[in-house]
Amino acid sequence: MHSKSTPIGVIHSPYRTKEDAPIQGIFSPGGLGRVEVFSAYTEGLKDIETFSHLILLYQFDRAGEIKLVRPTFLDDEPHGIFASRHPCRPSGIGLTVVKLLRRSKNILEVGGIDVLDGTPLIDIKPYVPRFDSFPEATEGWLASKGKRYKPPGRE
Amino acid sequence: MHSKSTPIGVIHSPYRTKEDAPIQGIFSPGGLGRVEVFSAYTEGLKDIETFSHLILLYQFDRAGEIKLVRPTFLDDEPHGIFASRHPCRPSGIGLTVVKLLRRSKNILEVGGIDVLDGTPLIDIKPYVPRFDSFPEATEGWLASKGKRYKPPGRE
Repeated sequence: MHSKSTPIGVIHSPYRTKEDAPIQGIFSPGGLGRVEVFSAYTEGLKDIETFSHLILLYQFDRAGEIKLVRPTFLDDEPHGIFASRHPCRPSGIGLTVVKLLRRSKNILEVGGIDVLDGTPLIDIKPYVPRFDSFPEATEGWLASKGKRYKPPGRE
Repeated sequence: MHSKSTPIGVIHSPYRTKEDAPIQGIFSPGGLGRVEVFSAYTEGLKDIETFSHLILLYQFDRAGEIKLVRPTFLDDEPHGIFASRHPCRPSGIGLTVVKLLRRSKNILEVGGIDVLDGTPLIDIKPYVPRFDSFPEATEGWLASKGKRYKPPGRE
């Protein structure tokens, strides 16, 4: 339905299946990942090690059918896809904030990863608290939803 | 070079030219925008009004040549594109966090907008402090860079 951005790399993670992956990175802060940026783009990483946190944009390459309203992993009530971080969304694009632990050339070791192993990476942006941190934001319908396991069989 | 995601809407803003637009939304918190979600996707907005802040992903549709290393709007020193929020990036995708002021059907009125008028919208995600707010993150090379005007003629 939607065309996809060309990947600039691949994200390696400990999560091989959807059941393995945490619903969000903060639910598994120990999840170590390796972000491999294709060598053609290594130059674009200049000075990235000056940041402690990065925003990764990636493709939900194993997502299922797109539905505009559906129950989510964290709630049995249906919510709109744009009021949810659910993978089956029109753009097919996921976003996660990770901690940058170490850089070696085109490899970034990161903490707090929540994506499936082999996920196509489409962009890296530096996380800048002045631009991106809004601790006063409300949690909306998620406010009462704590960590839980993914309901079995739910896409 | 890169294919583009299909838009789900259009962002209307007071900024008609690159010179008008603030470098980041926080530099112009009063910038009011209107996010028009195409009516085919209205259903996907269910419950979005329970959130105070939203993440918008959009296309940098008027960006110029992609360079992996370049001076940025906020610094004359060159930095890698993945260590910068510069628009001319391989993915062509921009990210901004806005405040949701009001929803009327498929129209979202938002504050803190920093994009050009008519920018194609590709995704909306709820901003959730537990997932997205990291006030302790370092500002990297941006730490000493305050608000300034865009250097004339700099793409």
